[in-house]
Amino acid sequence: MKPILRKLFLLAVASAFGGLAMGQNLSSYVNPFIGTKSMGHTFPGACVPHGIVQLSPDTDTIPHNVNGAYQKDVYKYCAGYQYDDKTIVGFSHTHLSGTGHSDLGDILIMPFTGQPKMNPGEAGKPRSGYRSAFSHTNEQARPGYYCVLLDDYGIKAELTATERVGVHKYTFPKGESQKMILDLIHGIYGYDGKVLWANVRVENDTLLTGYRITNGWARTNYTYFAISFSKPIVSYTHVDREKQKYSGFWRKFRSKDNFPEMGGRKIVACFDFGESTTPLEVKVALSAVGTAGAVNNLKVEAAAKSFDALAAEATQKWDKELSVVEAKGNSDQLVMLYTSLYHTLINPSVYMDVDGRYRGIDHEIHQADGFTNYTVFSVWDTYRALHPLFNLINRDRNKDMVASMLAHYQQSVHGALPVWSHMGNENWCMIGYHGVSVVADALVKGLVNDQPLALKAMNSSANIPYYDGIDDYRRLGYVPFDKSGSGSSITLEYAYDDWTIYRSALLMGNDSLAKVFRNRAMSYKNVFDPSLGFARGRMSDGSWKKDFSLLSTHGEGFIEGNSWNYSFYVPHDVRGLMQQMGGDRIFVQRLDSLFSMHLPDEFFAHTEDVTREGLLGCYVHGNEPSHHVAYLYSWSSQPWKTQYWVREIMNRMYRNTIDGLCGNDDCGQMSAWYVFSAMGFYPVCPGSNQYIIGAPYLPYMKVKVGEGKFIEIRAPKVSDANRYIRSVMLNGKPYAKAYFTYDDLKDGAVIDFEMASKPNKKRVFGANERPYSLSEEK
Amino acid sequence: MKPILRKLFLLAVASAFGGLAMGQNLSSYVNPFIGTKSMGHTFPGACVPHGIVQLSPDTDTIPHNVNGAYQKDVYKYCAGYQYDDKTIVGFSHTHLSGTGHSDLGDILIMPFTGQPKMNPGEAGKPRSGYRSAFSHTNEQARPGYYCVLLDDYGIKAELTATERVGVHKYTFPKGESQKMILDLIHGIYGYDGKVLWANVRVENDTLLTGYRITNGWARTNYTYFAISFSKPIVSYTHVDREKQKYSGFWRKFRSKDNFPEMGGRKIVACFDFGESTTPLEVKVALSAVGTAGAVNNLKVEAAAKSFDALAAEATQKWDKELSVVEAKGNSDQLVMLYTSLYHTLINPSVYMDVDGRYRGIDHEIHQADGFTNYTVFSVWDTYRALHPLFNLINRDRNKDMVASMLAHYQQSVHGALPVWSHMGNENWCMIGYHGVSVVADALVKGLVNDQPLALKAMNSSANIPYYDGIDDYRRLGYVPFDKSGSGSSITLEYAYDDWTIYRSALLMGNDSLAKVFRNRAMSYKNVFDPSLGFARGRMSDGSWKKDFSLLSTHGEGFIEGNSWNYSFYVPHDVRGLMQQMGGDRIFVQRLDSLFSMHLPDEFFAHTEDVTREGLLGCYVHGNEPSHHVAYLYSWSSQPWKTQYWVREIMNRMYRNTIDGLCGNDDCGQMSAWYVFSAMGFYPVCPGSNQYIIGAPYLPYMKVKVGEGKFIEIRAPKVSDANRYIRSVMLNGKPYAKAYFTYDDLKDGAVIDFEMASKPNKKRVFGANERPYSLSEEK
Repeated sequence: MKPILRKLFLLAVASAFGGLAMGQNLSSYVNPFIGTKSMGHTFPGACVPHGIVQLSPDTDTIPHNVNGAYQKDVYKYCAGYQYDDKTIVGFSHTHLSGTGHSDLGDILIMPFTGQPKMNPGEAGKPRSGYRSAFSHTNEQARPGYYCVLLDDYGIKAELTATERVGVHKYTFPKGESQKMILDLIHGIYGYDGKVLWANVRVENDTLLTGYRITNGWARTNYTYFAISFSKPIVSYTHVDREKQKYSGFWRKFRSKDNFPEMGGRKIVACFDFGESTTPLEVKVALSAVGTAGAVNNLKVEAAAKSFDALAAEATQKWDKELSVVEAKGNSDQLVMLYTSLYHTLINPSVYMDVDGRYRGIDHEIHQADGFTNYTVFSVWDTYRALHPLFNLINRDRNKDMVASMLAHYQQSVHGALPVWSHMGNENWCMIGYHGVSVVADALVKGLVNDQPLALKAMNSSANIPYYDGIDDYRRLGYVPFDKSGSGSSITLEYAYDDWTIYRSALLMGNDSLAKVFRNRAMSYKNVFDPSLGFARGRMSDGSWKKDFSLLSTHGEGFIEGNSWNYSFYVPHDVRGLMQQMGGDRIFVQRLDSLFSMHLPDEFFAHTEDVTREGLLGCYVHGNEPSHHVAYLYSWSSQPWKTQYWVREIMNRMYRNTIDGLCGNDDCGQMSAWYVFSAMGFYPVCPGSNQYIIGAPYLPYMKVKVGEGKFIEIRAPKVSDANRYIRSVMLNGKPYAKAYFTYDDLKDGAVIDFEMASKPNKKRVFGANERPYSLSEEK
Repeated sequence: MKPILRKLFLLAVASAFGGLAMGQNLSSYVNPFIGTKSMGHTFPGACVPHGIVQLSPDTDTIPHNVNGAYQKDVYKYCAGYQYDDKTIVGFSHTHLSGTGHSDLGDILIMPFTGQPKMNPGEAGKPRSGYRSAFSHTNEQARPGYYCVLLDDYGIKAELTATERVGVHKYTFPKGESQKMILDLIHGIYGYDGKVLWANVRVENDTLLTGYRITNGWARTNYTYFAISFSKPIVSYTHVDREKQKYSGFWRKFRSKDNFPEMGGRKIVACFDFGESTTPLEVKVALSAVGTAGAVNNLKVEAAAKSFDALAAEATQKWDKELSVVEAKGNSDQLVMLYTSLYHTLINPSVYMDVDGRYRGIDHEIHQADGFTNYTVFSVWDTYRALHPLFNLINRDRNKDMVASMLAHYQQSVHGALPVWSHMGNENWCMIGYHGVSVVADALVKGLVNDQPLALKAMNSSANIPYYDGIDDYRRLGYVPFDKSGSGSSITLEYAYDDWTIYRSALLMGNDSLAKVFRNRAMSYKNVFDPSLGFARGRMSDGSWKKDFSLLSTHGEGFIEGNSWNYSFYVPHDVRGLMQQMGGDRIFVQRLDSLFSMHLPDEFFAHTEDVTREGLLGCYVHGNEPSHHVAYLYSWSSQPWKTQYWVREIMNRMYRNTIDGLCGNDDCGQMSAWYVFSAMGFYPVCPGSNQYIIGAPYLPYMKVKVGEGKFIEIRAPKVSDANRYIRSVMLNGKPYAKAYFTYDDLKDGAVIDFEMASKPNKKRVFGANERPYSLSEEK
């Protein structure tokens, strides 16, 4: 008997073209499959907003390296799922959303029938392991719920989740014994060799507890679990793929069957529940603290409820969370908007037990005092738009995220805010110390409780001598190319980060510290070659790197971007940057060229993390260093070009298809860019209070910024043709500035955009209307 | 400059022949080198009574297996130190005392001068690694203090300890930079491959924290540490011998030098403190809970005190602990007595932080509620005499040990009391469920608080169907040879264990449970072949194993003993055993034969864990199953033979030499046998209240059994010649029984032994004077 599944892939949106999305069923506008093919690196599985459990199918298991050789496909499986795959290995409980580095995939469960196969098998060899073929025809997903038919077994697998519990419902064919694999070897970032230790206890016939410690991208990740079953285990067994060092242990017990304490580095267990007419429900609670914590999480969040009740609750949570936005648009536009909003609400994730205990960056157990602890801080990405978005629509949560980052700082032996941290580990991915930007943006917006601690954390993070060239940066004013291959990127980003510390120190009246960081914030100039007006690799002796290429993203002093792109990275002093380039005319010419130049083929071949659709000329939307660039026209004499290119990017690079994301979603940064840009403004320089006006994307949006407080964005005439702003009204009054401030928006506002098919070339911004630049500061 | 060291090996005892040992300096009677050569498996390093830190030199590092092949020398290095070795690898902080299986050796430190060598090197290749040559001429030890000159470096190394802190004092040659290796790969039971993960944080220039998780004999052992230095670190570095999986981490920091967060499976770190004229003091606190726990342990126990003050305190603690015994004897006798007492006071070890938190057998963190938690339960050995000894001289501590065992039971997924457990792990070594005996002996003596819990734990431990043949044992009445190669040993020991449960149930008025276990206690009969009157391997079908050898210890149904020895293992029903053998005459003949038979050479070759000196005829004192056997004459018509053989064993098998122990000391069991036997009585059947009278060894002993309560044992005429008892007086009254009871002794007693050169053959015991036998129970 095959259960009947409803296909939801290109979902039928209730509203027709031009409909208004609001109210109770906004989840129906979300297509969790967007980004699951190619580079988006999103996953289609079940989670609730910011939950630590992301229960999702993994479609292959790629070892990180085989005989010492790095496996390129590891990158492809950052989220565990690739849409083109034909088999599902199983359902694991932790996933990163949209990252460019893979990890997690903890605690994999796979239901099956028949003879147990204690290994996943190979994708190309049907029935070589416990994995199963599946078809997208029989696959369905909505926020908080995922469902698929496992063809090899005829099992309907349904998944849902609470914050800390993954919930499975398996409907088996009649007459088959109901069985389940628990594979503790499985993981994303390597099937083999990642697990340091795993342990399982069969506490009773409906409860397992255990843990595993992995050495993946998170260097030492502790995942404790409690697994409850809706029916008693009849029998169980396990294998340990690694030879036991002390064999006496097993000699005594004569058998690996039904022995309730399994331990090893490579454990695969198998549980048999016997024949039955009712589905098997499995609840898997996670904790980073211990198995008692996991049991308690299970009890508090899920114990008393059925799968169906929990699945309904999960979707309700999403409906509520998504209801912060009402919007008018066509079906694809609404799906893209709500899917983007959905993607901004997955990471960071709650990282503490229901009792407030969590594992810190020091691997010690801490009690969260007055805040909810979060993890998964992809800060190089998310400082740009994701945290600023939260500061508008999710302030309480961002307050807790900042508190979590400050706790991280206090536990860090380096005295550092997060760089790229997850699951109580710092993986130091990418450059800068942008944690200071996240903290500063919250501080400036009044969302930091302990301001002196915040400033201390920022100052400390910016002064770790051994961290990524900081010693050289402090001494020379830049990170030299001969010391770091990314030196000029680093210098540009440090300069911006330092500006956020300057602003915070100023706000708190610490003038001496402000002065230090004001000076450092000007360091960007030290990597601008005055003969070119472009940023360039620079040597320790002050000379410029020879044989320089503006286009190459490799070996020129930049990372995930070339000089063409990185030369626009001075978000805190755009007018100063303009001077470096040679004034307004050249600045605008260069922006124009960036978006329209014809690129040689080899450029694409060497550009990381983006699809070909992720390029507009030399503009690379799939990598974050460009995210603010389209908005830079607002500082120039031709601000309307922002209006043109932002819409172009939205149309081309965010599409309601499975490969609709032009690059990694990067824990919601790509999506946060979309949500902001759809509203018609964007935080080019977090840590300032300004949002640079682009152009609204939809005729109507209403965004909740507090209880009973809304930003209404009205642009009834907007369309691809009418993409230009004729005029702006704020709360009914004509508005002439290039930006809104936080104060304009934080308690709600009504913004009326009059749109037109031609740019309003009179709408240019003088010194009093232009956005902030450090060089112009009084 | 070589520091001048005082040789203490064969220590000059203050008192001359026949002196009285009492008062303040009893530590001076202890020779920590006894047992460090050959099979004793004791260590010479520094610890305090029952402290978790045993800081001791390791003289070699033997991998457990090389290319899959087991390395026999692993056994030799159970305690890390072998007296014949010429080099010291370093000083590690945890050791087992006298075991027959190796483990621990955690957190190895080695001071050095000159160029760092980041590996231990090989014993046969001078200066091939950081290890150093040393000479016993320059080595010294007393309880709580160890000192050696490291010849390769001219460094005087001194060690002392508190319960949870190892303290080092290194006096370097003038003009040399003071340096130190921290080797987190090192461990006993394998230099390589045992470590699952290690982590070090340089918190500041005088404090390290970190941990390592090992998979040794203890399957998953968590050792957290905090290390403080008396002077600031000038610079440091480390290597990781295992290739990093994620290389990006190190790319960012460009160097492994002075990077304050080291992590990996194979970490060796090196610290440089610069040149100085003062010694370097290092304090290493351990915790199984976390680094914060270790820091707190350091603070509470050792932070404010100098090495010299802590060393003095350590020896004072020993003096106090040893002062429970006063004795008269010659120098060798007193050294042997106090060294034995010393060895009984090392394991079990305190296993909790100063705040009462500890890691349980479930790997979770628990708070010890109203007791001190202990670990290292070598129960198969120590139920015999060590715990019974504590029940006389160390009741509070044994009460806590039993409470620890009950907590272990509550945390065990098997519902089992400890079998052989250490560091929050059960390694299931050896046979039986003798935890029930330890609990019962304490219960019978009123030393268990929660008696219902105790009985529940005993009943549960004896009914785990998958444990070592229990299902067969319950079904057939014995563990068949075709199911377990040790089946008859197991049956005999289960029968005794069951008797202790019977007695406990009876005491608590649970008659139905008592009846069940009374029946089970008679199971020993099921492995006695009536045609031989010897215990024998038996098959599932009831037939006896063919081709049976009474002498072989291998392949006959016994473990660490042959049928000759094991056939005497019915401590709870000696009179019943006598019937099995054919009555008193044959029983006595067999005992005589056991002690005097001439053995073929191949017997010795196959006997485990004992030296040739550990044999008397076929009697194997180095293995525990015989420990009670010399006392069995007391149930017979010729009790004086006990008096002869006990003295013979004491003289031959406990000698004041480095190889003076005839077999593994087994966490103090061998030594506890000695202390009991020296007093003139022995607990043949723990769980009863009887101590079987042997003969006093010394002219005078005074043993403290409580505040102001003493057992005085007076035998002024005793000598090797006058080894026989003429008569006994208890508290001044003639005493005719074969045993003392707990009630006789627990509040103190005066025992007068009149000794003679010939046995008093009239001193035989009728039905009313004989010790307990289950068969004779009314």
